[in-house]
Amino acid sequence: MFFAGRRRPHVRAAMLILGIDPGSSTTGFGLVDGRGTDLRYVHHAEVKVAAGKTLAGKLACLYQATLDLLDEYQPEMAAVEGIFYGRNVRSMLVLGQARGAALVAVANRGLEIAEYPPTVVKQSVVGYGRAAKEQVQQMVKVLLNRRRIGGEHAADALAVAICHHQHRQLRSWQQAAGRQ
Amino acid sequence: MFFAGRRRPHVRAAMLILGIDPGSSTTGFGLVDGRGTDLRYVHHAEVKVAAGKTLAGKLACLYQATLDLLDEYQPEMAAVEGIFYGRNVRSMLVLGQARGAALVAVANRGLEIAEYPPTVVKQSVVGYGRAAKEQVQQMVKVLLNRRRIGGEHAADALAVAICHHQHRQLRSWQQAAGRQ
Repeated sequence: MFFAGRRRPHVRAAMLILGIDPGSSTTGFGLVDGRGTDLRYVHHAEVKVAAGKTLAGKLACLYQATLDLLDEYQPEMAAVEGIFYGRNVRSMLVLGQARGAALVAVANRGLEIAEYPPTVVKQSVVGYGRAAKEQVQQMVKVLLNRRRIGGEHAADALAVAICHHQHRQLRSWQQAAGRQ
Repeated sequence: MFFAGRRRPHVRAAMLILGIDPGSSTTGFGLVDGRGTDLRYVHHAEVKVAAGKTLAGKLACLYQATLDLLDEYQPEMAAVEGIFYGRNVRSMLVLGQARGAALVAVANRGLEIAEYPPTVVKQSVVGYGRAAKEQVQQMVKVLLNRRRIGGEHAADALAVAICHHQHRQLRSWQQAAGRQ
């Protein structure tokens, strides 16, 4: 099919994607720029919440850090890893609070948040849904052409951003195929 | 002891307290004004998050509702019920996210958040740490001199605000006793 005078959006549209990996003490952020099959590393960061802070202080700190990142880089989409059910209920609540604080900042800047289960993220990045953490980190470096990626949370955040880019691309291919 | 020309702060200082009871679908808010041993009902509200909304939409809605309430009533303190560990991990994460969204609004208005375990809230309101939900609701009505209190979450939010008032008063009595 020939697209007269019109770019094929699923191939050329660039999109800055923010991946977030919230943790109870450290939250990772990863920004990638997806343009068709090209993926470009933009930025990564880890926000550690000081142990001595109050609950209000911790949440406000994480919210502000997320907002600062959103305002500096102005991503167009956000993605977060879904729920891993193996943890205990206490750590799940603490994690949930951190997620809530980070995601509400994203929501307040008008971005939608895509969620992907851990197995889907691993499948996207490594090609195997039960891949080890180290394999994910290794593949993030390969895919983004980086020698080093900050910490574990930053790598996971970049992984979920990569996963979102791949799923977007897949959907746009499917839509294009449907139109033909 | 005679307080010459000085009011006893633990008896007369009024304090508007916001109690919050975050839930996965409904969050309760309760405002009480505590002045010494006097407790006055100010307001209660329940925010239901529409089931069809996206995660971002839900969190932004809850954050904004909390902010609106804070800006309208300008409470000086906030209190939230602590963790009840009996739930499963999935509901704990969803609950944690709602907590995070509501509490980050409180934190962003510069308020500290006091946390009380459910048993302490029940002990404060009913006088018995393992009291039933209905007993708590009944005592909230009695203590605040109200015939009806909206829903279960609003009653729980008022209960935690009452609990915070009583603990503040207890602490100020202890401090006054320590000074004598």
